[in-house]
Amino acid sequence: MADVEFWFEFASTYSYPAAMRVAKIAEAHGVHLVWRPFLLGPVFFKQGLKDSPFNVFEQKGRYMWRDLERITAADGLPFKKPSLFPQNGLLASRVTLVGLKEGWGPDFVRSVYQANFAKGAVISDESVLSDLLVGLGQDGARVLQEATSPEIKDALKAQTELAWEKGLFGAPSFTVGDELFWGNDRMEAAMTWARDAHA
Amino acid sequence: MADVEFWFEFASTYSYPAAMRVAKIAEAHGVHLVWRPFLLGPVFFKQGLKDSPFNVFEQKGRYMWRDLERITAADGLPFKKPSLFPQNGLLASRVTLVGLKEGWGPDFVRSVYQANFAKGAVISDESVLSDLLVGLGQDGARVLQEATSPEIKDALKAQTELAWEKGLFGAPSFTVGDELFWGNDRMEAAMTWARDAHA
Repeated sequence: MADVEFWFEFASTYSYPAAMRVAKIAEAHGVHLVWRPFLLGPVFFKQGLKDSPFNVFEQKGRYMWRDLERITAADGLPFKKPSLFPQNGLLASRVTLVGLKEGWGPDFVRSVYQANFAKGAVISDESVLSDLLVGLGQDGARVLQEATSPEIKDALKAQTELAWEKGLFGAPSFTVGDELFWGNDRMEAAMTWARDAHA
Repeated sequence: MADVEFWFEFASTYSYPAAMRVAKIAEAHGVHLVWRPFLLGPVFFKQGLKDSPFNVFEQKGRYMWRDLERITAADGLPFKKPSLFPQNGLLASRVTLVGLKEGWGPDFVRSVYQANFAKGAVISDESVLSDLLVGLGQDGARVLQEATSPEIKDALKAQTELAWEKGLFGAPSFTVGDELFWGNDRMEAAMTWARDAHA
């Protein structure tokens, strides 16, 4: 049995329902899950996109917001269309890397997605992230300092490079060895692939 | 209970597995299905795309071909990556409109997708389409002449315009009243939506 790597970006809309359910779905499949924050900005830029495809292609964007509304309703998740899209997830991603080392990463990830897509918070704001950290029993100031250390900055940069090398072009994505699955709606396919140990 | 409209384009890769299973899935949901051929070219052009997004965005294109290979394998469908992509589906779409009036439309649609994505045939070629028609017991010459009548040409043009007005930006898509679902992987959601008569 292979691991499933879950690649997500905090600005990514479909990453919200994916992040909220991925731990449960992995457990149901008996699969080990690896959380992989990365930045979509550089990945879009390499494809010649200077903004989210949902902003570049208006009709697609309109569809996405309606689709997300249906999906979150079906999943029982609160949803409010953010006034700012896409948000800058750089600092939140760095904090996540600290959290993944210290064991509170997945809880932090879920709290950031809810802040962005249910509460209308500005997730690039240090005080917003600090509040979320305090809510998880962490020392906000200590974590935010650690999150901007050269080690963490380099780790996020390396992980974003790795995403591109693995063939990613959007989020959420899942990898099982060399096998790539794109989209919240491919989560089950990725889990099944890992469970059946193709990789 | 509302109808499900199935919007497809013969050049569209994910429309292949969708077209092969849509009748069965509609029947399983007890939903009435309406087949809606349209042209993606004008729809892409309105979005500023001069080629398939799978050619414009290389990394996404690489992923799509691998994903299609997995999906057709899972569905038990023959698949061979066409050397020509995207193919011109204009004439085949016009023939489909004739077939939908005469009752052999769905069979013709499935035969064209198999010609394109399993047999490596050039589906813009009149003789290829004529052979497919003969295989369905039709008079190829008669149908091809009917397919280029002003009435059929206008009908396809109008349907492509309608697709854009309904918010479509890609294929396959499904509509249930004003509700839009995009992608082979949203087929079940569209069927359920229609069955539960939201629309």
